[in-house]
Amino acid sequence: MTLLSGALKIKSGELVDTIHSTAEQFGAKNRWGPEQSQTGVRRLALSDLDKGVKDWFVKETKSLGCTVKIDEVGNIFATYPGRNNDAKPTGMGSHLDTQPTGGRYDGIFGVLSGLQVLRTLKANNYVPNYPITLVDWCNEEGARFAMSIMASSVWAGISTKEHVYALKDVYDNKTTVLEELNRIGYKGTEKCSHMANPLKCHFEIHIEQGPILEKIGKKIGVLTSAQAYTWIEVTFKGMPQHTGTTPMDYRRDSLLATGKVITGINDIAKKYGGVATVGKLSLSPNVVNVIPGEVNFVVDIRHEEDEGLHKMYKAVRELLAEVILNKAGNGVPLEADIEDPYPTPAAIFNSELVDLIDESAKSVVGEEYAHRMISGAGHDSCATNTVIPTAMIFVPSKNGISHNPEEYTKPEELEDGFRVLLETVLRYDESRTD
Amino acid sequence: MTLLSGALKIKSGELVDTIHSTAEQFGAKNRWGPEQSQTGVRRLALSDLDKGVKDWFVKETKSLGCTVKIDEVGNIFATYPGRNNDAKPTGMGSHLDTQPTGGRYDGIFGVLSGLQVLRTLKANNYVPNYPITLVDWCNEEGARFAMSIMASSVWAGISTKEHVYALKDVYDNKTTVLEELNRIGYKGTEKCSHMANPLKCHFEIHIEQGPILEKIGKKIGVLTSAQAYTWIEVTFKGMPQHTGTTPMDYRRDSLLATGKVITGINDIAKKYGGVATVGKLSLSPNVVNVIPGEVNFVVDIRHEEDEGLHKMYKAVRELLAEVILNKAGNGVPLEADIEDPYPTPAAIFNSELVDLIDESAKSVVGEEYAHRMISGAGHDSCATNTVIPTAMIFVPSKNGISHNPEEYTKPEELEDGFRVLLETVLRYDESRTD
Repeated sequence: MTLLSGALKIKSGELVDTIHSTAEQFGAKNRWGPEQSQTGVRRLALSDLDKGVKDWFVKETKSLGCTVKIDEVGNIFATYPGRNNDAKPTGMGSHLDTQPTGGRYDGIFGVLSGLQVLRTLKANNYVPNYPITLVDWCNEEGARFAMSIMASSVWAGISTKEHVYALKDVYDNKTTVLEELNRIGYKGTEKCSHMANPLKCHFEIHIEQGPILEKIGKKIGVLTSAQAYTWIEVTFKGMPQHTGTTPMDYRRDSLLATGKVITGINDIAKKYGGVATVGKLSLSPNVVNVIPGEVNFVVDIRHEEDEGLHKMYKAVRELLAEVILNKAGNGVPLEADIEDPYPTPAAIFNSELVDLIDESAKSVVGEEYAHRMISGAGHDSCATNTVIPTAMIFVPSKNGISHNPEEYTKPEELEDGFRVLLETVLRYDESRTD
Repeated sequence: MTLLSGALKIKSGELVDTIHSTAEQFGAKNRWGPEQSQTGVRRLALSDLDKGVKDWFVKETKSLGCTVKIDEVGNIFATYPGRNNDAKPTGMGSHLDTQPTGGRYDGIFGVLSGLQVLRTLKANNYVPNYPITLVDWCNEEGARFAMSIMASSVWAGISTKEHVYALKDVYDNKTTVLEELNRIGYKGTEKCSHMANPLKCHFEIHIEQGPILEKIGKKIGVLTSAQAYTWIEVTFKGMPQHTGTTPMDYRRDSLLATGKVITGINDIAKKYGGVATVGKLSLSPNVVNVIPGEVNFVVDIRHEEDEGLHKMYKAVRELLAEVILNKAGNGVPLEADIEDPYPTPAAIFNSELVDLIDESAKSVVGEEYAHRMISGAGHDSCATNTVIPTAMIFVPSKNGISHNPEEYTKPEELEDGFRVLLETVLRYDESRTD
């Protein structure tokens, strides 16, 4: 199929310039190299910097002729008009907030790629058949207010505004989401609901945050789904004793028990084809010559399918039970506390949209550079996917690094991603009948 | 053999009262129960509290008729006169300093048991054949100035006063041992040397700091040796990546590697009949959904014999090499830094003194309650053992807990230990010919 976007003049470099100029203005931080652009970004949700970038986003989209709606949970919907403005808009979106030590791509690249689509339409005086809405979803990271994919979840009806309004700032336990929405002027009047303020579909482009595309030499990831995942928080309680004076058989060593879990979940992940990690761990008393009395850690397990996650979860619980009963030896059983919230189910993206992205990607970058894959991380699209057709596009991440100042994707890879998004949106617009 | 101490009147309870009254006066801290005596002690070497207890010790021993010498590294030698005062004194000693969250027994019990021996001689007007010197060795713990068994090592000639003078306060990097010795008035004029200021032998009584005596129902441990040990500090450097987006085969997970070491050293300890522990560990970035990029930890290995320690050490280094090369799977090799100081060799105590303690113990508490064993921890006796005949006595530690405010030994167990020390010293004094 020929490229619909082939007829359009594209300002090469404008997207990448916008990524860097907004990074400079709104939160550039944590230098890792000598060049101007070699820093990360710290732009916590609902902070002054987040207000700054939101104000900029509103102004920029209005200047393109968009109508801007702000909903009661801080989501911004910028709608570029088409020929049939009573129909539901085609949706694109991601988020402009970052982790505390975040990079300058992550969700930002997704929103600014959407902006570049609108800029391109405007610059070419291209009028789509249907309106196109670009969304900045509020607080995707959950770093400052500890709920990731926050405002898109409310919009999709899988959480409530009352719940998120009450969330507290993890750095300052007195401040809530509601207070900060009011303070920065982003508690809008539009109802936060996919029914009151609908989209026809949701496309999201994002950096991979993993190493696969780079390792296999592909340019575009076509996402078929996002993994199911869950976190299991474990505290082992043993006995702090002198390392020199306590024979191996008399020990209740919480870190030895934890070591068995760390190596055991690795086997479980391989057996079931998922991933499993302990990333967070603390121990006490944490002294060279004292056996660790208490260790707290979190097991993060993920699988492409809900059933696979469930099997992994069962295997991890059996492993924990074995370790607690000390079946592998070394003294009396440990005590343990296990906290175990509900798992987040897998998001299976809409197959028609997945095929549309796949074809667009092959047309833009060539058959051999598009790769069907799953998302390891959660995204706003996981929320929208519960109520409207949704699909996602990935571009490579250097060394798979993300949530880190050194997060990096090459300018030409960013441009390729944007062109795939543009082509996908144009094809979708062409093919829509309502 | 009949008890030589049987002829002496012993003030039951005086030792335990002194343990508690000096704890109250000099550093009682960290309450763990409702009773007055249910706290630990925080009495760091060369602090004001250490000066306080040293002043008290000097006054107390002088009141018994002792001559007191203070050496240039803060050791205090209190000599109770005998009939042949030109001969080298029979030595007893331990230490009065504690860990930051220490208990009220540890080395304190050893020094105060020696004091109780001298008090008993004085109260009974008993004149020994040879002088008897009680030593408070300075900075055994190495908690404030990071060298354990500090001043006894200088005395034995295995370290130098220049080296220890320059040691810095771990809590305040500006203060040195020399400054603090001068400040509290314990840089004495006596040369710190086993040649200039000799002892004939060294007896030390200590709490076990482990669970063995309690577990097997014995009252007195007769030590044949103290373990050899070494600490291996390891830093693994991998790659911090997103837990959800990084497949198992692309990972360089430093905590997974550490888990393999933690479980592997456990097998090594059992294979070679030693002990092995990771007690201290830190990781970064230490976030639930990021694979640990860097982990730092210390492997503590100990064995009764130098050769056994060497075998364990070799096995641990092979394990580390395997893990670094990632032979067990999961992606590319890790980088590692390994710091590896000289091991501390095993101390094999003087067999004649060991036999003397064994016989004394059997006479005092009964044949069935004495138990030959090794010391898991290092003590001042490990230093003295390198230059003079040395042996040690243990009493039980409740639950094997030590270096902890809840360190506890029953009053009757403390009294039993003191009586064994008294009997041992009297028998030694009787049997000496020079």
